[in-house]
Amino acid sequence: MPLKDNQTNNQSTKVLTIGLVGFGVVGKGLYDVLKSTPALDAQIKRICIKDPNKPRSVDKSIFTTDVNELLEDESICVIAELIDDADAAYEIVKAALQKGKSVVSANKKMIAAHFEELLHLQQKHGAAFLYEASCCAGIPIIRNLEEYYDNDLLTQVKGIINGSTNFILTKIAEEGLPFAEALKKAQELGFAESNPSLDIEGHDAANKLVILAAHAFGTIAKQSEILYTGITSVKKEDAVYAKEKGSSIKLVAHAKKINDHELAVFVLPQLVKADNDLFNVKNEFNALETESCFADRHFFKGRGAGAYPTAAAVLSDISALRYDYKYEYKKISRPGTLTVAKDYLLNVIISAEEQAAIEDTAFEQINEWHSEAGYVRIRGVINAAHLKQNDWWKAAGVSLILCEDAFSTEGKVVREEEKVSLRKSLAAV
Amino acid sequence: MPLKDNQTNNQSTKVLTIGLVGFGVVGKGLYDVLKSTPALDAQIKRICIKDPNKPRSVDKSIFTTDVNELLEDESICVIAELIDDADAAYEIVKAALQKGKSVVSANKKMIAAHFEELLHLQQKHGAAFLYEASCCAGIPIIRNLEEYYDNDLLTQVKGIINGSTNFILTKIAEEGLPFAEALKKAQELGFAESNPSLDIEGHDAANKLVILAAHAFGTIAKQSEILYTGITSVKKEDAVYAKEKGSSIKLVAHAKKINDHELAVFVLPQLVKADNDLFNVKNEFNALETESCFADRHFFKGRGAGAYPTAAAVLSDISALRYDYKYEYKKISRPGTLTVAKDYLLNVIISAEEQAAIEDTAFEQINEWHSEAGYVRIRGVINAAHLKQNDWWKAAGVSLILCEDAFSTEGKVVREEEKVSLRKSLAAV
Repeated sequence: MPLKDNQTNNQSTKVLTIGLVGFGVVGKGLYDVLKSTPALDAQIKRICIKDPNKPRSVDKSIFTTDVNELLEDESICVIAELIDDADAAYEIVKAALQKGKSVVSANKKMIAAHFEELLHLQQKHGAAFLYEASCCAGIPIIRNLEEYYDNDLLTQVKGIINGSTNFILTKIAEEGLPFAEALKKAQELGFAESNPSLDIEGHDAANKLVILAAHAFGTIAKQSEILYTGITSVKKEDAVYAKEKGSSIKLVAHAKKINDHELAVFVLPQLVKADNDLFNVKNEFNALETESCFADRHFFKGRGAGAYPTAAAVLSDISALRYDYKYEYKKISRPGTLTVAKDYLLNVIISAEEQAAIEDTAFEQINEWHSEAGYVRIRGVINAAHLKQNDWWKAAGVSLILCEDAFSTEGKVVREEEKVSLRKSLAAV
Repeated sequence: MPLKDNQTNNQSTKVLTIGLVGFGVVGKGLYDVLKSTPALDAQIKRICIKDPNKPRSVDKSIFTTDVNELLEDESICVIAELIDDADAAYEIVKAALQKGKSVVSANKKMIAAHFEELLHLQQKHGAAFLYEASCCAGIPIIRNLEEYYDNDLLTQVKGIINGSTNFILTKIAEEGLPFAEALKKAQELGFAESNPSLDIEGHDAANKLVILAAHAFGTIAKQSEILYTGITSVKKEDAVYAKEKGSSIKLVAHAKKINDHELAVFVLPQLVKADNDLFNVKNEFNALETESCFADRHFFKGRGAGAYPTAAAVLSDISALRYDYKYEYKKISRPGTLTVAKDYLLNVIISAEEQAAIEDTAFEQINEWHSEAGYVRIRGVINAAHLKQNDWWKAAGVSLILCEDAFSTEGKVVREEEKVSLRKSLAAV
């Protein structure tokens, strides 16, 4: 990040005194990481916890159960908010920003739910609010979307942004574990949220996609506007079908510009072929692919969960605060920001135990119809608007898997051609 | 990048007037890209070219053959240096920095050769010098190494950083093209330097590695200190051997911390297995993997060559100049910067047409000895110092391929264990 003045404003001039809220795996991870990073002149002064009686590995005098002790301590200039409870987190972040303190958070649910208010609070109070750890843990995604893809014309951001579901899908596909056992393993390893439904029903990925879409495209979507589901309905037969096709099933989040005004934003299980970079994203790893007119595709991959990877991202934000780094949300204030698309066509495979469970009239087009005892599968084109408005495809026993090529060529997605034509017109200058 | 003041210093306050030096593929690419990015308030005022008689697709009045017209124009605040000639580029960059102009460049050869002088010039004149496009074209590597991996403890940076050789190796492996034909194709597509030896003999990758090592570790290595070779000696038999092992051969650059004081820095052809992320980096794509104590491994992949991907990186630097962004080279000024290691052990496969061409006594250990008519192959452990000091393994007909696991476990590389022990000691707190 730029220095205001390269000569005078160097690292040693600003000591960061941190108030840490939450001492779970990530909070403890941050504590450990900070201890081993003396080059960063930052220290944790107070730690706010919920349960004072829980045994801790750190000297008790640093703990408090009263968050106001942190908020009202003027020597604390940074609040690191690392608790699970999104509502409590929101109150703490709001209070801290109002007091002009910088805030670092990893709470995607809270950030997605209050995106506009938090943006407004930052602007009003001039305080920095950073949350790189909220999406894909340590992979530097948000800051790259903010800074690096500032001017190139992004056309798509897509990826695997939930480590827990990816871990479960990997264990099911590679070790043949039943769903419940794979989930248990993810929780034991600390990769799953304490409330697993946040992960496995896709809410967590949808929250992250809200954040990514805002930083990539300037589009502030509400979670309720996003078409999404999780992996609870992925059946053994789906996994077998995927394997036969040389593919695997991943929970993939998409934000794609489908015309000059609209962004398609959804999270759905998807077939991923072996030559796709996402295929080799396994276990708790996350990955994101950006697509832009000039730089073309960039692929970022790394650990998407775990105490230290998440703490590393929090630390990087804390480090950036030394230079008064703030997200600028430039794309949000630009004219012509994209709105969330409702009406676009997707290539899907829907399967169920019996044909009656599939509303075949909902398809715009049917390309394949497979039927055997206890298993019906239809591959065809369906409108996203239908999926958003109807729930039959989320019913028990029914599963929807997006095809490798998500968007129907019958549809309105001509971005690839637009790109080619743009390049051609430039080449003709 | 941070704003000095979020309220007043917004995008619209600073218009960038650019003097462009060079109108080859990248220069023309930048011109095109800028034209289609009106959101960035930047314009090219003058373009300095070598040959005034070459037909151009742009109005002639913008061109000059006198670089001083750009350097002495006070309205030009940014020089975009995009020429091939490293010596001429150095003179231009030096003159521009001395005049306090910001400079953006993609000239890795020039930057690597003059790293310390250019650093000194920036510090003396307070001018920004950005060169994201010099390494891996549009993939945001340098800025991430500078900013994001500021505090996490990087242990390794490795990757495929030359698009031309990767394109050639891919064509040889996948299409069975002879070397010369694959090279010709790379040149036709604009992926190779005008002087192909820069690419195929590894000089280009070594130059980039100088830049990456400086930003990742603060170690300023001279190109002459780096152990490197290219791909000219990779034989058909090597490719067959790699395929048999389910691997492919890539030219891989490494910068790895091997103890508390030393960095191993080398570029060598290497066997890469199918489950390694680098395996799927094909054609002109580049990729870099970072490894750090806490965030663990991150993988970045994208187009590493081509007019538009390179221009996109140049544009991103230009955009950053609006916010007075500068590299801070923080790691260089930290105490205890790593020096270039000389003495460490590598796992290698050396093959030749006849045994006499291989100095088998140079091996510290031999693990495999294969001999057939016209082809001898030895797999074993060799000291990097021996390779640096001797040239027999670069002779015609001899090829050296690094094993998948580059560092010998017999050697001094215990970084993985160090990491585990660091984590354990933290967990025990």
